[in-house]
Parts: sequence; C-alpha cells; structure tokens
Amino acid sequence: MSKILVFGHQNPDSDALGSSIAYAYLKRELGVDAEAVALGTPNEETTFALNYFGVEAPRVVESAKAEGADQVILTDHNEFQQSISDIRDVEVVEVIDHHRVSNFETANPLYMRLEPVGSASSIVYRLYKENGVAIPKEMAGLLLSGLISDTLLLKSPTTHATDPAVAADLAEIAGVNLEEYGLALLKAGTNLATKSAEELIDIDAKSFELNGNQVRVAQVNTVDINEVLERQAEIEAAMTAAIQANGYSDFVLMITDILNSNSEILALGANMDKVEAAFNFKLENNHAFLAGAVSRKKQVVPQLTESFNA
Amino acid sequence: MSKILVFGHQNPDSDALGSSIAYAYLKRELGVDAEAVALGTPNEETTFALNYFGVEAPRVVESAKAEGADQVILTDHNEFQQSISDIRDVEVVEVIDHHRVSNFETANPLYMRLEPVGSASSIVYRLYKENGVAIPKEMAGLLLSGLISDTLLLKSPTTHATDPAVAADLAEIAGVNLEEYGLALLKAGTNLATKSAEELIDIDAKSFELNGNQVRVAQVNTVDINEVLERQAEIEAAMTAAIQANGYSDFVLMITDILNSNSEILALGANMDKVEAAFNFKLENNHAFLAGAVSRKKQVVPQLTESFNA
Repeated sequence: MSKILVFGHQNPDSDALGSSIAYAYLKRELGVDAEAVALGTPNEETTFALNYFGVEAPRVVESAKAEGADQVILTDHNEFQQSISDIRDVEVVEVIDHHRVSNFETANPLYMRLEPVGSASSIVYRLYKENGVAIPKEMAGLLLSGLISDTLLLKSPTTHATDPAVAADLAEIAGVNLEEYGLALLKAGTNLATKSAEELIDIDAKSFELNGNQVRVAQVNTVDINEVLERQAEIEAAMTAAIQANGYSDFVLMITDILNSNSEILALGANMDKVEAAFNFKLENNHAFLAGAVSRKKQVVPQLTESFNA
Repeated sequence: MSKILVFGHQNPDSDALGSSIAYAYLKRELGVDAEAVALGTPNEETTFALNYFGVEAPRVVESAKAEGADQVILTDHNEFQQSISDIRDVEVVEVIDHHRVSNFETANPLYMRLEPVGSASSIVYRLYKENGVAIPKEMAGLLLSGLISDTLLLKSPTTHATDPAVAADLAEIAGVNLEEYGLALLKAGTNLATKSAEELIDIDAKSFELNGNQVRVAQVNTVDINEVLERQAEIEAAMTAAIQANGYSDFVLMITDILNSNSEILALGANMDKVEAAFNFKLENNHAFLAGAVSRKKQVVPQLTESFNA
C-alpha cells in the first residue's frame, strides 16, 4: 500500500493548507500512511500562520503518479480543475470539503464528508473529536487560521452557526486570542504593494466551468479598495494576458475590504452581460461595487452560475 | 420554508426505501419538515419488509416541483439520471449515499455524507447515533432490510468491516433473528415466475453514462440461475425493446444466485467487446458466468467503466 497524498486546492490558502496538514496528521494518528503536500507555495497570510505556529510548509508536488501515489485525499475542494494535474489517473479515496460539488466523479465508492460550514478546517476539527484524537497546539493553530481566513474572522455569510464555538475551542487549544490573532492573520494577507499585477490576480484564484465557459474568479483582501484600483491598468493587463494564455472566457476579480466587509468587482471577458445580470449592477470602466459581499462561494459563484445558465 | 422531500433512486430497492424513510423520520425528530417519498413502487422484497414491520409504502412522486418542494435530500444515490425527473430544477441540500459519485453537481455547498459501506442504511444508522436519537423498532427493521438487501446478508464484497455490528444492533432493536429474517427477506425477492420479462429486467435496474454510452445494468436475485435462463428468449426480447425505447447503447443483466454468491451475465448491445474485456470472459449465446460476483457496484460497474474508458 503506497502513501496516500492529502492536499488542498491549487493556489492554496490558509484553509486548504490548514485542513490538509491537520487531516494528514489525524490520518497518521489513525494508522494511515498519509502525507500532506501542496499544489503551490503558501501565500503571505498562510506563511504568517505557518511561522506563528512553527510548522513547515508542505512540499509542492505537480503530479500524484510522479510521487508514486495511487490514492489521494482532497481537502477544501472537489472540482478536478482546481486539483492536482493527474487527478483523473488516481483514486480519490476521501474528500473533506465545504464547497459546492461540480466536475467531480469517481469510479468507486469513497468517503466524502461535505458540510455547508465556514471552512474545511471546521470539518477536520469535528473529525478529530469524532475519532477521539487530541488536537496538538500547532494543528489547532492551523485549523483556526483556515477558519478565520475563509470566514474573514467569522464575519462572512459563509460562517455556520457552529463555527464560533469551533473557533473559540481552537483558539484556546492554540493559545491565542481569537480577535487579536485573527486580525493579525488577515492583515498579513493584505500586503499587496510588493506584488506584481500577475501575482496579485493569482493569490487566490479559482476556475469554474459555467455552461461551457471557463470563468476565472479571483479574490484579494485589502484594507483600502482604492489603493488596489489605483493599479487598475496593470491589473487589467494581467487579467487580459491570463485570459489569452489560459483560454478563460472571463476574469472576475473581487477586491474585498476586510474591515468594512464589501467588495469591488473588476471584470473583463466575453460575457460581461452575464456578469452584470448576475449582480444586477452596471460595470463602469470595468468595475462596480458589491455592498456586503465578501464570499466568493456564497455571494459570487452561485450568482454567476445562475446567470450563465439562464 | 416548504417541505423537504427525501427519496432514494428510481426502481427503489430495500436500501433506497429503508434509508429514505428512516432518514426522513430522523430529520423530523431534529425539527426539519421532511417527508419520505418514492420514485417508484416497492419491489416484492421491499414489500415483504414493509409488511413485516407494518410501514406503509411512501407515495410515489414524479416531480419535486409539482409537490411544491424546492429542496430535496437524496439517499442511496447521487447520479442525476437515477433521481427525480426535475432534479436539476431543485436544490439538493443533502446526500446520504454509499455509491461512486458521477453526474452530480450543485450550485451551493451542501451536506454530503458518503461512506464506502454496505448500504446507505448503515450510514443513516450512524446518523441516529451521532444525533442521539433513538431508533424506533420499525425504522430499525427497514434499515436492517436495506443493509441485508444490499449486502446479500453480509456476504457481498461491498460489506464493510463495520456492517456486521450495525446489522446485529439493528436486528436486536427490530426484534428479529438476523439469519432467519435475512433469508426470508432475500427469498421474497426471488419470486420471478410471476413477473413478465419486461418487469423482470426493471426490478433493480440503473443507467450509467460510460464514456458517452448509456449503459443499463440490471440485477435479479434467484435461487436457481437456470430457471431464469430458461426464459432467455423473452428476456432478450425485453432487453432489446428497452434498448430501442430508451436509447441505451447496451443492456447488461446480472442474474445473481443468492445462495452460492455467483452471477450469470446476460448482455446485449453495441459494445459487447467492451463488456467481454471488462470481465475477461467470452459471451456465448449472449451470456457468461461470473464466479463470485454478486455486487453490481463493486464487481460490475467499475470494471465496465474502466473498459469503456480504455
């Protein structure tokens, strides 16, 4: 029996890395030869969390087969285009996720644990409890970071009624103050000044197949939307280049104000009518304000899906 | 908030009905307005179980929208072509299943609990335990019937290591002897003499999309394979008619000997080379023996999937 690789999605964020590292640890405690790997290097926010809790970033892999693995466990994603390059050549034996299901299939029955909660880390927390395994301090810290990151410190509408209690328990195990640590973690991810436009649109970007269109939806966190819009020209150039290089039909960028919980949408591509219809707004100079929107998963992708399918 | 409909797959078997009836009961105990319905009338085996435990068959529905339901819970299946006719027009809020995942997608995050165990009923049993809800005697009887039916009394390779203990506990709650009740249940499903050939090939039949082909895979249980093969001519005529009427590329019928745990495969259609390659056998007069095969899910569909994709 070869090693089972455990990983989150491409462009890993704090929840992808936290859930995969902590779930691989749990599987090993349960006697399974599991290793957490990553489909990319950690972003600045996640690097802050890894450094804070003294955990090394998982090694980056490009192919499961090249690692000698026949079986994989996915955390924080299920859509194949967000997964490892050779996902169709290996067996997915487990999925721990909190997203919609799409472009996912298996030949065999599997263990699949999806819950509509704030983070995949919330589910991994529950699986420790169900299996009676104590959560080590540093694993609690990474799971907490995943939950804080995905819910913008429990403020996003994706926050589940059960998540605050999970966060409180994890903060206690991790030995941090939830609010203080949470704000420090989120702020670590808003340092966009050092990023090129190409890097910026790829910090947290996912592709979605919407009615035959490949739509790229990226998100950046900031404490000042205008600071990002000042770079609109170079960001648009990077978006256009990404569209052409990857065959995207559209590129939708959420510029999210983490302090006031709003987003500016900057969008380019072939289906701007559908993007406008999705949010019932009018793009001016390619962008528009989306009040109260902070969640790609709940406040952007479902609306785009419906509009593209209309 | 309108009522949530809970149902198993088309051509419901004992696991589809047992898991949906018992899960709807659990959801109601948890305060959710849920109703079990069915996508077809119960077969003879399931009718035996319903009568034994004094439970009425759920009403048969054709469309969720027509029932005023916007949300549904699927048990014992996830593939849309095995589900309700308007599955794409409603929101799937939960799935409790033990099959592979295919042709399934949602616009929103959901609760999805899949485990590679012997029956969906085994998972529903666990969900009662996790939620601290006592299992009523008749619900235990239906869940037990689902588990016995799907695992051929725990003999199928789909039986999970945890299933015997689940069966023992359910038998105790239901007040039956596992072996005696189990054999009586299975034998109730082998009375094929009263069935027309059209009925016989539809008792337990599912469609699978294999590399663009619509492949129908049906299974009948018997205590004497030859008794079924004596009706080969009329069964083949029914299979051919079903192929033409429904656009199937192929029709594969498993005739399963529940006493000796073997199957005879009777197959017709456009891809017999792929069917032969799947099982490494040669069809003679359209049929061939498959020693030790009793599970469509583990011993037939994965092999067909691989062969059709080769």
